[in-house]
Amino acid sequence: MFENKDSEKTGLEELGEFGLIDHLTGNLKPRRPSTRMGVGDDAAVVEIGNRHLGVTTDMLVEGVHFDLGYTPLKHLGYKAVVVNLSDIYAMNMEPHQVTVSIAVSNRFSLEALEELYAGIALASGIYEVDVVGGDTTSSGKGMILSITALGQADPEDVVYRSGARPNDLLVVSGDLGGAYLGLQVLKREQEVFKVNPKHQPDLEPYHYIVERQLKPEARKDITALLRSLQVRPTSMIDISDGLSSEILHLCKASNVGCRLYEEKIPLDPLVIRTCEEFNLDSSLVALSGGEDYELLFTVDQKDYPKIKGNPNLTVIGHMTDADSGAMMIGRGSGSAIPLTAQGWNSFRKP
Amino acid sequence: MFENKDSEKTGLEELGEFGLIDHLTGNLKPRRPSTRMGVGDDAAVVEIGNRHLGVTTDMLVEGVHFDLGYTPLKHLGYKAVVVNLSDIYAMNMEPHQVTVSIAVSNRFSLEALEELYAGIALASGIYEVDVVGGDTTSSGKGMILSITALGQADPEDVVYRSGARPNDLLVVSGDLGGAYLGLQVLKREQEVFKVNPKHQPDLEPYHYIVERQLKPEARKDITALLRSLQVRPTSMIDISDGLSSEILHLCKASNVGCRLYEEKIPLDPLVIRTCEEFNLDSSLVALSGGEDYELLFTVDQKDYPKIKGNPNLTVIGHMTDADSGAMMIGRGSGSAIPLTAQGWNSFRKP
Repeated sequence: MFENKDSEKTGLEELGEFGLIDHLTGNLKPRRPSTRMGVGDDAAVVEIGNRHLGVTTDMLVEGVHFDLGYTPLKHLGYKAVVVNLSDIYAMNMEPHQVTVSIAVSNRFSLEALEELYAGIALASGIYEVDVVGGDTTSSGKGMILSITALGQADPEDVVYRSGARPNDLLVVSGDLGGAYLGLQVLKREQEVFKVNPKHQPDLEPYHYIVERQLKPEARKDITALLRSLQVRPTSMIDISDGLSSEILHLCKASNVGCRLYEEKIPLDPLVIRTCEEFNLDSSLVALSGGEDYELLFTVDQKDYPKIKGNPNLTVIGHMTDADSGAMMIGRGSGSAIPLTAQGWNSFRKP
Repeated sequence: MFENKDSEKTGLEELGEFGLIDHLTGNLKPRRPSTRMGVGDDAAVVEIGNRHLGVTTDMLVEGVHFDLGYTPLKHLGYKAVVVNLSDIYAMNMEPHQVTVSIAVSNRFSLEALEELYAGIALASGIYEVDVVGGDTTSSGKGMILSITALGQADPEDVVYRSGARPNDLLVVSGDLGGAYLGLQVLKREQEVFKVNPKHQPDLEPYHYIVERQLKPEARKDITALLRSLQVRPTSMIDISDGLSSEILHLCKASNVGCRLYEEKIPLDPLVIRTCEEFNLDSSLVALSGGEDYELLFTVDQKDYPKIKGNPNLTVIGHMTDADSGAMMIGRGSGSAIPLTAQGWNSFRKP
């Protein structure tokens, strides 16, 4: 009775995912004093006794978020856990537990779910989190995963998106764009395979970027590194949707602007080579590609000596007052271009 | 590549939902000291500072768990929240927050999701919980909901399934079987409507049981009542799958047996009348129907005077040693019949 047959009804693709969540949850004002952060950061934050709990959840739908044509189920299980842990690390919290709910059609066998769980178990072991619950049910079509991660921290350690101030340095871990390019390589091989089923894909030259796509890691090491360097980020977010979109989230939540230097964006040589092969602009891939699960954060300028020259960290810009806007300073030209979000919208057809 | 084409692969329907969860999570032993209870109770329990956190999650799939042909979206949103809160109350904890993830196909309009969220908001208001996060994405087919509820309690207040002892009294809140019968009435009206689309269903005579199905409540009042009576249950569970299945869960977790008296099972007069109309055995409906979301718990015999005669509570039996088994004493005959679980298995075709 609520089907979208009536042209006066509003199609979901018009709002996009962020707009939709904002629209639907906008009237739901928190009333519990224990709710320290609801919708609007990498994870919700709940006060429990003298500690803070971080809660984040993700729903992954076959055919929308993953394609079992080139995603081994073990990798899928691994990645589904890791992307949620990444959100907990992005709050500077330590993940302790996850819940895993799965709906599958009769197309899947027990052995298939065992493969999926082998990946979940592997991630749980490496990141030292416990699988404490979940639900397993049948679906009308395909596989749907819903994972929730729980993390803990002392209240003073929690880092929100909202703490950046003008002149803070903008820093990113690792390098960007690899996961998106890995996906392009996998899709190309799949197309070749469709035409010639005897084709044996040689993914070895693309190993790094294919692994970035299929088996990403959460940057547990970076939050540990920052602690050991005694650097507390003023704001932080993980890069799931592309650098551009995440910078805009930090700017909006912190009410600041920023200057991103295009030439500083860290790119792996394989990313640059593969961009040339696919005739793609490497900056655009880093800005809009997504799924890199690196950490993007801001630090006070006085902390610069502590992070300077660290091979895991790259200063890519600095924050400004809000009126200056969120700008990228182009490579070579030096001209300022406004950053635009090209965040992914699963309701829009590709 | 993992599709179930090979006859040597194991079909999921062979294990059932509980068997499947046990099988998949059996190797995942908790390693975090903060994990006080993983899989195996109404909610997982996590130690945070000096408090305990309860976590429970449910995945609801259109066509498997609900039928939008007779379920208004607002009711669906309400029920989806309430059934998770019920699991938190069943741990004797107070729910504080929920997360709501939704996958929907393009068939749904924004207005449809607003209806769903109106129900979620209504439940949040009545039960005083905050919606702190979630995910909204597109699905290949239909609607899938995944809800997680978080609750809190002091460690000494948490009630597990495992605390029942021989001679404890077995108590249930409210009355049983209504939700299942309400579903039968709704299905019957839907069949009539298919034949004659001008048919106007008159559900008024069945108001109570239809409401039990479409808009159940979690027994927040019962945990409050027990506190005010200074009765601490020794074990507790909520009735989502039918009385029989839940009693067996308590017996197994507590390593005890039980004697349930058939004549004591609380039934509403409308349930008895409707059972006669549908030619169903009312005890069987209460034992196997499910979705009543009443609380089933055990108390020490010394607490009997405190609960005796309370219209909200019915003593339906007592626990025994494990060797005596889980038995029902038949009405009239007085003969002992072993209780069997007829828990719902979404993988099995009806």
